[in-house]
Amino acid sequence: MRKAKKVQDSYVIMTELVLPNDTNTLHNLMGGRMMHWMDIVSAISAQKHSNRIVVTASVDNVSFKESIRLGNVVTLEAKVTRAFNSSMEVHIVVYAEDIPSGRKVMSNQAFFTFVAVDQLGNPIDVPEAVPETEEEVKLYDGALRRRQLRLVLAGRMKPSEAKELKSIFEIKEDAQGIG
Amino acid sequence: MRKAKKVQDSYVIMTELVLPNDTNTLHNLMGGRMMHWMDIVSAISAQKHSNRIVVTASVDNVSFKESIRLGNVVTLEAKVTRAFNSSMEVHIVVYAEDIPSGRKVMSNQAFFTFVAVDQLGNPIDVPEAVPETEEEVKLYDGALRRRQLRLVLAGRMKPSEAKELKSIFEIKEDAQGIG
Amino acid sequence: MRKAKKVQDSYVIMTELVLPNDTNTLHNLMGGRMMHWMDIVSAISAQKHSNRIVVTASVDNVSFKESIRLGNVVTLEAKVTRAFNSSMEVHIVVYAEDIPSGRKVMSNQAFFTFVAVDQLGNPIDVPEAVPETEEEVKLYDGALRRRQLRLVLAGRMKPSEAKELKSIFEIKEDAQGIG
Amino acid sequence: MRKAKKVQDSYVIMTELVLPNDTNTLHNLMGGRMMHWMDIVSAISAQKHSNRIVVTASVDNVSFKESIRLGNVVTLEAKVTRAFNSSMEVHIVVYAEDIPSGRKVMSNQAFFTFVAVDQLGNPIDVPEAVPETEEEVKLYDGALRRRQLRLVLAGRMKPSEAKELKSIFEIKEDAQGIG
Amino acid sequence: MRKAKKVQDSYVIMTELVLPNDTNTLHNLMGGRMMHWMDIVSAISAQKHSNRIVVTASVDNVSFKESIRLGNVVTLEAKVTRAFNSSMEVHIVVYAEDIPSGRKVMSNQAFFTFVAVDQLGNPIDVPEAVPETEEEVKLYDGALRRRQLRLVLAGRMKPSEAKELKSIFEIKEDAQGIG
Amino acid sequence: MRKAKKVQDSYVIMTELVLPNDTNTLHNLMGGRMMHWMDIVSAISAQKHSNRIVVTASVDNVSFKESIRLGNVVTLEAKVTRAFNSSMEVHIVVYAEDIPSGRKVMSNQAFFTFVAVDQLGNPIDVPEAVPETEEEVKLYDGALRRRQLRLVLAGRMKPSEAKELKSIFEIKEDAQGIG
Repeated sequence: MRKAKKVQDSYVIMTELVLPNDTNTLHNLMGGRMMHWMDIVSAISAQKHSNRIVVTASVDNVSFKESIRLGNVVTLEAKVTRAFNSSMEVHIVVYAEDIPSGRKVMSNQAFFTFVAVDQLGNPIDVPEAVPETEEEVKLYDGALRRRQLRLVLAGRMKPSEAKELKSIFEIKEDAQGIG
Repeated sequence: MRKAKKVQDSYVIMTELVLPNDTNTLHNLMGGRMMHWMDIVSAISAQKHSNRIVVTASVDNVSFKESIRLGNVVTLEAKVTRAFNSSMEVHIVVYAEDIPSGRKVMSNQAFFTFVAVDQLGNPIDVPEAVPETEEEVKLYDGALRRRQLRLVLAGRMKPSEAKELKSIFEIKEDAQGIG
Repeated sequence: MRKAKKVQDSYVIMTELVLPNDTNTLHNLMGGRMMHWMDIVSAISAQKHSNRIVVTASVDNVSFKESIRLGNVVTLEAKVTRAFNSSMEVHIVVYAEDIPSGRKVMSNQAFFTFVAVDQLGNPIDVPEAVPETEEEVKLYDGALRRRQLRLVLAGRMKPSEAKELKSIFEIKEDAQGIG
Repeated sequence: MRKAKKVQDSYVIMTELVLPNDTNTLHNLMGGRMMHWMDIVSAISAQKHSNRIVVTASVDNVSFKESIRLGNVVTLEAKVTRAFNSSMEVHIVVYAEDIPSGRKVMSNQAFFTFVAVDQLGNPIDVPEAVPETEEEVKLYDGALRRRQLRLVLAGRMKPSEAKELKSIFEIKEDAQGIG
Repeated sequence: MRKAKKVQDSYVIMTELVLPNDTNTLHNLMGGRMMHWMDIVSAISAQKHSNRIVVTASVDNVSFKESIRLGNVVTLEAKVTRAFNSSMEVHIVVYAEDIPSGRKVMSNQAFFTFVAVDQLGNPIDVPEAVPETEEEVKLYDGALRRRQLRLVLAGRMKPSEAKELKSIFEIKEDAQGIG
Repeated sequence: MRKAKKVQDSYVIMTELVLPNDTNTLHNLMGGRMMHWMDIVSAISAQKHSNRIVVTASVDNVSFKESIRLGNVVTLEAKVTRAFNSSMEVHIVVYAEDIPSGRKVMSNQAFFTFVAVDQLGNPIDVPEAVPETEEEVKLYDGALRRRQLRLVLAGRMKPSEAKELKSIFEIKEDAQGIG
């Protein structure tokens, strides 16, 4: 039987200061730098869960609504939501803060998936992730649906076979969403 | 009437050498660095199409199948697939090459979306993108479906209203996919 | 009367992955990179306390006992210990973790001092820092002694006038230390 | 008997241009970047003295009085002041120059301590450092006092046993200081 | 007999965005950053021609006429012009583009020479480079003259023995130049 | 009459440690990084001579004979050799040192030319450079010949008009060279 670890044990906080080279000519943080930070914080989270070297397997759709300015402080919080054999889904929430003005917003969230590997790069099983809080349980439950979407988008599952995903498109009043 | 530009006019090639700081302890390129490069090459492509400053609006699901090694040469090719008012979808294809062995693979593809903005950061209309080759037309046609998925995932459209997207889940034999 | 803020409100966590360029030829983290990270995390902490731009005024003696390896995860935790007019002392604790082996050690601690400034760079008063936990109170109390040491070392106070500091050298059994 | 080398043989000059990413939102050099440069120049100095790989053991109190601007030229001069078995104290003086205005100031000085190690990271004895000029002799003499302060601050020596250091606090008129 | 490869097979395009740290205090791209990019793109080109690790052997005279601004897009195009035993001359053309204004200029061209080496760093023969277009033939022909200039400048050939080069200085009306 | 400054007043020393990201897969310093450092040290030298912002105008032929290894210490020494109206030629000598083995070699030398500009980027006259030592006089004298070569290579002077340069190709026994 697989070992199990609490979701909370994979919790990682990363804080970054937006420097000139991270910004475009409008002095706003470039999306690619943000993705780079997201990858590092979530890789560390997946490492903590698995105690293994991990490699990025996929990144789910990320949207950028808030512009983050030069000099802002960016805080990224990551935790594993669910583990599948050798892979782990990690949820990342990003906050941007303009400290002099006291303005802090949740700017993005994202799901990254990692595979744990051995020294030769071969996939290796990881512990199950045990959710405890209500929010952790919700993220755990949604992980199956997001995984189907990932497989469909990667051409490794037919849309017609993605049951959890498919059901969303059939109900009239949708309170749930895919994300 | 909006101006129109050929898809080909937004074509950009970027080449990167994988350096030590781009790699993890297995000497493989980290996913976040790749996303960073994808963002830059596609932002330049969207700039070329719109002749405007652009900001990243969203990144579609990206999967990482190939491991790319320290010293490999990474080539990223980007072009705008379709424009919607002030936003542009850009398609990126990534090749990784181990030159001494002559091994070259298509390692990833991705869709990034950008919004053109003026000097104050306000959205501004961009020219239509006119596809010419068969592949450009196919990417142009798929853009509508991918846009619906993005809106659904961002919680800005109900799954039941995403007609193009929804139809995929209703047909038995699917030859098309979402991606 | 000056405004007051809880020490806890200035608490910042920063997480860094040790990359090749951060290491010497033995693949150990260089001390200067660590100091660089300490400066960023403590500057953010001082910013959070003061809601101002801050500049580094001084760094207390830091010792490096543990060697931190390429690929390790470094966690820095910072909080303001005490405020003096326009200056704030920040305490930083650094942990280094080799995740595959599960080995985690407290590698360093340090005290950085910052001055809050306005847009022209002139010093400006900051809120008092109110300690709550036993550890926060102890750090608050020690801040006076460390400040005297700083002033003596900077040649701005005579050793003979540094009462709190001086007393340490006169008692036989010392359970307290300067640091 | 241990080999001996002149202090002058460990003399290193490093010159840096302050670039955008080295500065805060007021366009002033961040303290952490300065510490990073100090560590590199003094590590090279200790390497030159010992002809060994060296690791940072400690950094003495550093204060930052001058603000250094974007585009300024920073010159760091380092030399070993004294060697103790496997450790070496290095003195660093930093000058900042605004070339167009011709303004040059001594902005900082610092003492870093390094330990020479073999390929396995074990400490290894280094040559004695022989001071020649008056300034070198003064720095050599003060090194003992600074070392006691370091040991006291690191909790490895009782204040009551730090004779050279202690004497400073007992004399009324102090012309010497600790630093 | 040595293998031969088409010039076209070594063609590489690299695109870079001018970021703050690439610029001086006038916000213009620094020449050294440009040389750094030129070296990478031409090394990749020489690698593609030789399928070997390559090391930079020399850089011909480069002049900088155009100022390139922060936020500009720089495109570098490189191809091998001619191979000599283990060395290859690579021609680089650089374009700078201010996309919002639509202004694009050819800002520089340069010739870098590389030597192909084995894993021990020893020189190893490379395929001949076969020019096809008129421009490729012209560059191929000029390579001999430029090589003589390089050898003369490196003190490895007497000016009086550099026949192709020397002839240029003897003719009255010169339509050709050295570069 | 133009102001005059001693060559010695423009003397700058820069020291760099070769880090992983500066090296290729053989762990040797890449030529482009070296050029980048050369540009910075010589720009600072030209700034010191002119007390102006300077821009790189050209780089003379540079050859790379020595391989410089990861962990080596690179020392660059620069000084202005001669000034022409608004331009200055700077001579750079580079030493590479493997400190543990005590091996130090002069690895490269180069000539960079800079133009002094005002805040709008317009060329502005600089002081004359007055050579004092025998070596400085020799470099001063050669500057005219190198300048003609630069103009010929840039297509701004006919080879037949480059008298100093041309004479070199006419004499049988050449003890002088162009470089």
